[in-house]
Amino acid sequence: MSLKVGRRGGVPPFIVMDVMKAAAEREAAGNGVLHMEVGQPSTGAPAGVVAAAKWALDRDVLGYTLALGIEPLRRRIARHYRDRYDVAVDEARIAVTTGSSGAFLLSFLAAFDAGDKVAILRPGYPCYRNILGALGIEAVDVPVGPNTRFQPTPELLDRAGGAKLDGLLVASPANPTGSMLTQAELAAIVGYCRERGIRYISDEIYHGITFGAPAATALAYGEDAIVINSFSKYFSMTGWRLGWTVLPESLVRPFERLAQNLFISPPSLAQHAAVVAFDCTEELEANVRRYARNRELLLAELPKAGFDRLAPADGAFYLYADVSRISNDSERLCREMLQATGVAATPGLDFDPADGRAFVRFSFSGATDDMAEAARRLNAWLG
Amino acid sequence: MSLKVGRRGGVPPFIVMDVMKAAAEREAAGNGVLHMEVGQPSTGAPAGVVAAAKWALDRDVLGYTLALGIEPLRRRIARHYRDRYDVAVDEARIAVTTGSSGAFLLSFLAAFDAGDKVAILRPGYPCYRNILGALGIEAVDVPVGPNTRFQPTPELLDRAGGAKLDGLLVASPANPTGSMLTQAELAAIVGYCRERGIRYISDEIYHGITFGAPAATALAYGEDAIVINSFSKYFSMTGWRLGWTVLPESLVRPFERLAQNLFISPPSLAQHAAVVAFDCTEELEANVRRYARNRELLLAELPKAGFDRLAPADGAFYLYADVSRISNDSERLCREMLQATGVAATPGLDFDPADGRAFVRFSFSGATDDMAEAARRLNAWLG
Repeated sequence: MSLKVGRRGGVPPFIVMDVMKAAAEREAAGNGVLHMEVGQPSTGAPAGVVAAAKWALDRDVLGYTLALGIEPLRRRIARHYRDRYDVAVDEARIAVTTGSSGAFLLSFLAAFDAGDKVAILRPGYPCYRNILGALGIEAVDVPVGPNTRFQPTPELLDRAGGAKLDGLLVASPANPTGSMLTQAELAAIVGYCRERGIRYISDEIYHGITFGAPAATALAYGEDAIVINSFSKYFSMTGWRLGWTVLPESLVRPFERLAQNLFISPPSLAQHAAVVAFDCTEELEANVRRYARNRELLLAELPKAGFDRLAPADGAFYLYADVSRISNDSERLCREMLQATGVAATPGLDFDPADGRAFVRFSFSGATDDMAEAARRLNAWLG
Repeated sequence: MSLKVGRRGGVPPFIVMDVMKAAAEREAAGNGVLHMEVGQPSTGAPAGVVAAAKWALDRDVLGYTLALGIEPLRRRIARHYRDRYDVAVDEARIAVTTGSSGAFLLSFLAAFDAGDKVAILRPGYPCYRNILGALGIEAVDVPVGPNTRFQPTPELLDRAGGAKLDGLLVASPANPTGSMLTQAELAAIVGYCRERGIRYISDEIYHGITFGAPAATALAYGEDAIVINSFSKYFSMTGWRLGWTVLPESLVRPFERLAQNLFISPPSLAQHAAVVAFDCTEELEANVRRYARNRELLLAELPKAGFDRLAPADGAFYLYADVSRISNDSERLCREMLQATGVAATPGLDFDPADGRAFVRFSFSGATDDMAEAARRLNAWLG
């Protein structure tokens, strides 16, 4: 008797992971790849974090921790909100998670029921849609474009259902565009949601990586938002799989129960090491300066290759290019680009199932030399 | 406007985590605790694993890995099936996961739809029920007791719905009882499921920790079962959050897509370190000898305190005691036990919402001296 396969496994692949795979195969065959496909720093964790990890390896049994994470880390994260944003957050509202991936999964489960409607931006991080789908929660698209700097407005939210929505998830800086909400815009959107009983989820995982004004936290505008952050981007610790969530008080215990059951605890060693990450400012700010240099370089060079319509890259480490004048099939364009130039980039379809064929995302989280070489090759190929 | 809280956050707590919390509070207040509540080795990872982790910390950026894990680890796990069970497994069918917790979540999503029925044993690991519930999959109880050594039989499965079931999940050795299926029993149950189109999921996370015959793998009886294992128990790496799944070929790609979206990748450092775990046999077998000593000690001592009706502890590191002659409320018994003796144990309600009030689970994964002291105190308290 043949056995069934669940429908949820039919979820679209996270295409960037498939691009990584193609790039890895190219590398295994001895051909170099310039990685602009994946949103992760080319640097490892700060030296202080590595040293703390070694220290913990020598002294700690590294068993399960409490489901919401070790106290010193929760306390240190709370202090971070005081130091960086001048916002007081009770450490009891902080949950350490297995990456922001774990934070999204648990937040969605804690806040919503199957059948609820959660608005997400299109283009946006593809896993939002796919995690919501796996949990039976309906993702409602809010199409955004250059005219609103790829961010939501009250009008766009009205059009997406307004008070009929149960939740709204916004990232600022955003992936794939890098665009940001101003403080006033963020306050307005949080207020819009509060008035209508819509749970606001703020994806703040690119905070710290900004090129103009610093990013504002939704926590500054009330305690009812769910705020999600990560050690992967600014703290340069992707593979450590550590993130956190700041929860409204009413969600702490439901979130904790779900975390106990679905994860037991976040990785122990990563937690011990991450406590010192906040004090590695010098190294981390040097990374941000590298991203700023890469951004300047690509903003000058990519237009010469025809990538001249770019979203406003206020933060994060992405350039989202409208390539409709070059190709009507960006997946194919990316495949050919990898083959012809060794430059790996991500087709927009990952971020926008409707209009993504016209876009490509370049990540500039890599080394500056690689970015310069990539620009040179793209110019030679298309320029 | 008040914001809703999702119903799924109403999932029962994983009570053992709450017991851990009470124990941690007692310890913070300066009072010692003898830990028999949590199913984790008191030892850390083998020295070779720690050394490999340090090596990787010095040499690897520790970024995301491919969603199904690094090739050397998948290959090493495949070899483990050849070495330990004489079963050939293609490494392409192996998915490294974020603990067995991640493996259960992804396996359930890949194999089942919302509304499907998956049979689980009662008593059993509480998170099965709660993860299934979070995903909208119906957990169907198969009550098991001492008359079938706390394992399923075809008759019990018929009574639970037989061919109407979409899946069956069995652990051998089991948690909380430690009881095991013989090879013949396992073959019969796998066959029962195959004939009826029921997906068999084999929880093999306690393999390697057995006190009589070694445990058989469901992989020996076909390629359609989902087999889940972990580095937490035999390999003594709980807090590293690393496990794996062996998948039927038809589920590999769905599982991979879900893993990309829900986890991105398992922890990178843990993966690099775990490659050598399989070669740390001497240390790991010494742990198993410690569990065996602890088991002998407790089997001799616990009956003196009145814990004389114990499930057959063929493997794992648990003794599941019928305490109905001592108390009709094991949650209260455990609370009082912690207060009076400093011995932390887990009330049966965690494993059996119907009959668990009559049971307590003692974990003997700790140090032998602690087990002896715990037995002494329990005898003084109840004996």
